[in-house]
Amino acid sequence: MLRFLDAGESHGPSLSGIIEGFPAGVNINIEEINNDLRRRQGGYGRGKRMKIESDSIDILSGLINEKTIGSPISLVIKNKDWENWKDKKIRPQTIPRPGHVDYAGSIKYGFQDLRNTLERSSARNTAMRVAIGSFAKQLLREFNIKIFSYVTGIGSKSIKKYSDNNEQIESMIYDSPVYCPDKIASVEMCKEIEVAGEEGDTLGGVFEVFVPYVPPGLGSYVFWDRRLDSRLASSIMSIPGVKALEIGDGIKSAKKRGSAVHDEIFSEGNSKNNILQYYRKTNRAGGIEGGVTNGEPIVIKVYFKPIPTLLNPLNSIDFATKKEIRAGYQRSDICVVPAASIVGGSVAAWEIANAFLEKFSGDYLLEIKENYKNYKKRLQKL
Amino acid sequence: MLRFLDAGESHGPSLSGIIEGFPAGVNINIEEINNDLRRRQGGYGRGKRMKIESDSIDILSGLINEKTIGSPISLVIKNKDWENWKDKKIRPQTIPRPGHVDYAGSIKYGFQDLRNTLERSSARNTAMRVAIGSFAKQLLREFNIKIFSYVTGIGSKSIKKYSDNNEQIESMIYDSPVYCPDKIASVEMCKEIEVAGEEGDTLGGVFEVFVPYVPPGLGSYVFWDRRLDSRLASSIMSIPGVKALEIGDGIKSAKKRGSAVHDEIFSEGNSKNNILQYYRKTNRAGGIEGGVTNGEPIVIKVYFKPIPTLLNPLNSIDFATKKEIRAGYQRSDICVVPAASIVGGSVAAWEIANAFLEKFSGDYLLEIKENYKNYKKRLQKL
Amino acid sequence: MLRFLDAGESHGPSLSGIIEGFPAGVNINIEEINNDLRRRQGGYGRGKRMKIESDSIDILSGLINEKTIGSPISLVIKNKDWENWKDKKIRPQTIPRPGHVDYAGSIKYGFQDLRNTLERSSARNTAMRVAIGSFAKQLLREFNIKIFSYVTGIGSKSIKKYSDNNEQIESMIYDSPVYCPDKIASVEMCKEIEVAGEEGDTLGGVFEVFVPYVPPGLGSYVFWDRRLDSRLASSIMSIPGVKALEIGDGIKSAKKRGSAVHDEIFSEGNSKNNILQYYRKTNRAGGIEGGVTNGEPIVIKVYFKPIPTLLNPLNSIDFATKKEIRAGYQRSDICVVPAASIVGGSVAAWEIANAFLEKFSGDYLLEIKENYKNYKKRLQKL
Amino acid sequence: MLRFLDAGESHGPSLSGIIEGFPAGVNINIEEINNDLRRRQGGYGRGKRMKIESDSIDILSGLINEKTIGSPISLVIKNKDWENWKDKKIRPQTIPRPGHVDYAGSIKYGFQDLRNTLERSSARNTAMRVAIGSFAKQLLREFNIKIFSYVTGIGSKSIKKYSDNNEQIESMIYDSPVYCPDKIASVEMCKEIEVAGEEGDTLGGVFEVFVPYVPPGLGSYVFWDRRLDSRLASSIMSIPGVKALEIGDGIKSAKKRGSAVHDEIFSEGNSKNNILQYYRKTNRAGGIEGGVTNGEPIVIKVYFKPIPTLLNPLNSIDFATKKEIRAGYQRSDICVVPAASIVGGSVAAWEIANAFLEKFSGDYLLEIKENYKNYKKRLQKL
Repeated sequence: MLRFLDAGESHGPSLSGIIEGFPAGVNINIEEINNDLRRRQGGYGRGKRMKIESDSIDILSGLINEKTIGSPISLVIKNKDWENWKDKKIRPQTIPRPGHVDYAGSIKYGFQDLRNTLERSSARNTAMRVAIGSFAKQLLREFNIKIFSYVTGIGSKSIKKYSDNNEQIESMIYDSPVYCPDKIASVEMCKEIEVAGEEGDTLGGVFEVFVPYVPPGLGSYVFWDRRLDSRLASSIMSIPGVKALEIGDGIKSAKKRGSAVHDEIFSEGNSKNNILQYYRKTNRAGGIEGGVTNGEPIVIKVYFKPIPTLLNPLNSIDFATKKEIRAGYQRSDICVVPAASIVGGSVAAWEIANAFLEKFSGDYLLEIKENYKNYKKRLQKL
Repeated sequence: MLRFLDAGESHGPSLSGIIEGFPAGVNINIEEINNDLRRRQGGYGRGKRMKIESDSIDILSGLINEKTIGSPISLVIKNKDWENWKDKKIRPQTIPRPGHVDYAGSIKYGFQDLRNTLERSSARNTAMRVAIGSFAKQLLREFNIKIFSYVTGIGSKSIKKYSDNNEQIESMIYDSPVYCPDKIASVEMCKEIEVAGEEGDTLGGVFEVFVPYVPPGLGSYVFWDRRLDSRLASSIMSIPGVKALEIGDGIKSAKKRGSAVHDEIFSEGNSKNNILQYYRKTNRAGGIEGGVTNGEPIVIKVYFKPIPTLLNPLNSIDFATKKEIRAGYQRSDICVVPAASIVGGSVAAWEIANAFLEKFSGDYLLEIKENYKNYKKRLQKL
Repeated sequence: MLRFLDAGESHGPSLSGIIEGFPAGVNINIEEINNDLRRRQGGYGRGKRMKIESDSIDILSGLINEKTIGSPISLVIKNKDWENWKDKKIRPQTIPRPGHVDYAGSIKYGFQDLRNTLERSSARNTAMRVAIGSFAKQLLREFNIKIFSYVTGIGSKSIKKYSDNNEQIESMIYDSPVYCPDKIASVEMCKEIEVAGEEGDTLGGVFEVFVPYVPPGLGSYVFWDRRLDSRLASSIMSIPGVKALEIGDGIKSAKKRGSAVHDEIFSEGNSKNNILQYYRKTNRAGGIEGGVTNGEPIVIKVYFKPIPTLLNPLNSIDFATKKEIRAGYQRSDICVVPAASIVGGSVAAWEIANAFLEKFSGDYLLEIKENYKNYKKRLQKL
Repeated sequence: MLRFLDAGESHGPSLSGIIEGFPAGVNINIEEINNDLRRRQGGYGRGKRMKIESDSIDILSGLINEKTIGSPISLVIKNKDWENWKDKKIRPQTIPRPGHVDYAGSIKYGFQDLRNTLERSSARNTAMRVAIGSFAKQLLREFNIKIFSYVTGIGSKSIKKYSDNNEQIESMIYDSPVYCPDKIASVEMCKEIEVAGEEGDTLGGVFEVFVPYVPPGLGSYVFWDRRLDSRLASSIMSIPGVKALEIGDGIKSAKKRGSAVHDEIFSEGNSKNNILQYYRKTNRAGGIEGGVTNGEPIVIKVYFKPIPTLLNPLNSIDFATKKEIRAGYQRSDICVVPAASIVGGSVAAWEIANAFLEKFSGDYLLEIKENYKNYKKRLQKL
């Protein structure tokens, strides 16, 4: 069983993470983790802080010669502007931002100074979840499972057409300033961000996590908390800013009839996953039926709200005076949906890797590979 | 910490459940549990099996004189038609239904007979989750927290207008054959179900869970798995048939600007929850900001797919012959969204009760009440 | 991951249990479970209640044709004298027994009537743990791992000599009225029990859990809660009446030098487990080094206190009057160490099975067997 | 609920730890943590490495102005000789030490080089558990609960008499080179260590954890894993080198009769804990009955084996040649029982703090204090 804890405040010295249960014998490419971290910091619509930091990972334990040894993996991401902050005298903050947890958090913990909440609740801490997810991604890739995540909408603008070639999608995501695999939509989205920014406002959007080549049989229907859809929902919904999600065509399906929703099963022909001899022509279920992967790509669509720190003042109250107040905020990000898409891919990778290890177990890579190979062999005879 | 396990197959002798961690000193109204069970079985669009069974709960432990004693609570719901089934010779089933887990489940567990999957994956087992959730509801009501759940859409038909009076909503839900608090929409939905049924098809829909008067401060932003939105998402998504969910106006918000999304905070005036002196005029966040309740009602919208057992044959394969086959199924339910809304309320109640106990702890009701009272007293001075 | 919950009061209708995570495809022998249950009820030194009940297991879910299907397994043991109790008017009990949890339990939960504690804290509920452990034993036996547990001391009497033949030990345990694999010691122990009983007193003792043929590599040193010794300690110490335990020669070792404690490793020769080519001539470590099985038999010694319900009155207080009082109790058991040895074997089996499944995983027996076979094959090349 | 993860290898750059669930508003004294760390490194019988390192804690998150904020607490202890090690070319180790996990660990994880196991399994990592336990100790002290731990035996030498004055015990522990609150025994123990060291051997011993003033009602009998004795056993047994433990007079009690074992309850008079009006004159139960604290001091006795790295060669095998070999080891520690006693106190503190928070809950210190105060008030009326 994989598990982790992470820690760290936005203006503290660093973010920390510890991964436990990661199998031995996996080569870890640090440059890849840093690449994920950089992409989380990027995307059109970001404010200035991101430019200061340029995250990179330090691995303090769990690897010898860049290979995992089964022991807990300790991770650190330094906050680069910590030096500038650490001796600053900071005034208590007492005016909560609508849409942010500083209001509810301070009530919960009895804080007078909202900074006690802000520091931890900042989306800054998603950097560590990206690093941790990158370990899961690298493990999954040993089994040819790859996680794609990309933006499909920002504000009122949406993607128009998808390529059906995974490699092409990947390169288009990399080329787009908003991580959207559609050139024309990307341009429109950037425009939308610019306009919102000029008007002191912020934007949300939609992103998608797409996981082809996942084997059938991950997750289970036998008890609710073992369902993979439940676990993905929990993980995705925990990303700050996410307010809704669907598996496959979940929202549209609710309005349709069963005959137009369920994915018929076919034999032989062009099964894409090379594991089963059966396949579907449609994938409205998003690769999961009854909480278990069915061999088709996992598809999750995620709805992300605009960030709550906006230049335009909203009405709020001041805990110090107990009076209403209109408060403007310092300029920050306008849109972080591209960044959120990276986080989404990372947390999904974690859940899928966990379900994978539950099924194929093993303490070291070679052992897991043998277990997996034998499963696939048995499926051939199905 | 509340936890439970449940067990039981669709055609076995009974469903079982055990609740652990439930505080002592809570009076349990059995009739209320049975009422929830009956409502789960009902709703326009149900097939015949529901009429046979008429579920009722047996409590085998954890209560003395109808009051909890802090010990594990053991629950049983007998399957009334077990007597008819137990000696039947049943042929192995080898043709999976598209949209159902019988395909993926049999692959996962290496079953030749799909019945080994079907028996457990049947939505029949949600009856026990309703009974378990009913305990959570009864605990929450000791603190004046009430869970509403109701249907807002079936197929292409949707609710048009809501009452803003909670008691009125409640009685309208009870009066509607589809548990929808809008009389006209209810009629339309029933009609839609009839037509679909005549054409051998099935329907999904949308339901809502609504929890007013929940105190601020449940859940936490400090670590991802303590966020209440994450836990609700996990729980709701685990209901068989659910494919999407949103908190508050999650989907619409993704297309709007921040200034039109975040709920401004106001002082004094008409705070509805009687706990805080601050309040909102809007509740697009659905009562949760940053994973923590903010004192406004929790609102969750849930998207439910049409059930996969339909009269009209879909294409599938036969594991026995490895060939494609078109298979028609026996008549069953046409639409179970009303039933699903009951399950949704139950699982949400469970998660909220759990978060409530985490914050206010205590081994017995009196202790928890004192802890809660003191919290509310401190909030007055906020 | 295996998990379970159990429930039930001493004078309620039944004990209940649910096992989750048990693999599919395992044939379950119900008679064996009942045999374990009968042995838990037996042993010289038991009072009369045991004779009334004669436990047997009902399995309500999780098996089809006596084979597990991967779904939760629901278990019930009926309390046979429930019929006699259910309508009795029982006076509140307010005088706690020294050595029993009725004192601390009533304080914790705010109970006025100690029966609210007594009913659950009764050792009666270990019957369900035996049934649950029996599933683990039957799973382990598919891999030739067998759990022995037997009494080595009662009061001042101890076993003198052990057979080194496992089959002989087994038959001697079965033949002894106190489950002790030494005929002469058994007679002495029975005598000691008789004398104590005549004098209105009770006796404790020592039992041993012995697990030969367990493979090396179960448990892990990488994080504390994954160590098998830690998990066994937790499980064994949770048996009502257990106050101490040691792995191997743990207590004696604390007084010796390292050179006289650690088990030297030898090559080839008479390795007993048929898995490794290396072995030990001594087993003072009790089969576990650093929290991980080393291929030698697991040996746990367990120290059990005399039961607290004694005929001879001890000093106590009455919660109703707040005064001291000397209270005699109804006759019950004199010594339950033989019964406790059965419980000990059961809970140890559970932990070992859990560690086994963590390493070899798999959703069904065939899959686990393949994974295990491949592990053993790799060990040959070590 | 408190939880933590820790990480770090013996010759890596540092040990890491993350604590989650620690309440807000607790002042943390860093010097006290460092004092615990220093004491873990000390004690007569230690080798040279301890002198090099001199551990101290860095706190990277979770505190603002030395006060906790409810967010995860990130901890680092630097390995001071890391600089000397990091560029060393280290030969693979292939000869396992009897008594050490390098044998079983390498088999489990498929390692050819035992260093992959050694680095993590080193008792070095107990330093982080001490630091983490120090947080628990500081939390408990806010409620006047103090943890004592001290050595009572080394090799064949044992403590002769105890003071019954807690403050005196504390100062005697501090004054003793082996952390033993008996001057004469301390001298004998040091002597024993010297002799063993000269003969190239190692020694184990016995230590005790003693927790007066703990309130009644921590832990629960209702389900096995909630019992405090079970949780303490698990935690204590997980300390490298521990092979046995007893609560109170667990071992002696197994040979006695019930009337001589159970602690009679008395009214009024000299109750020491100032919480209850009832008390005991004896404490053979070690403060825990039926898994729940009864208001008397918790007493745990822990049996520790001699460390397995000894100068005198024992027989082993070489995984590289598959042949037997006698291997001498570099000089290291002779006896680490004093250090282990510090670890024991730390892990016990953690479990007790966790049970304390389960009962009294609360997100911040003030809230917990109110909850606790009200509990004590209710107990007065008992």
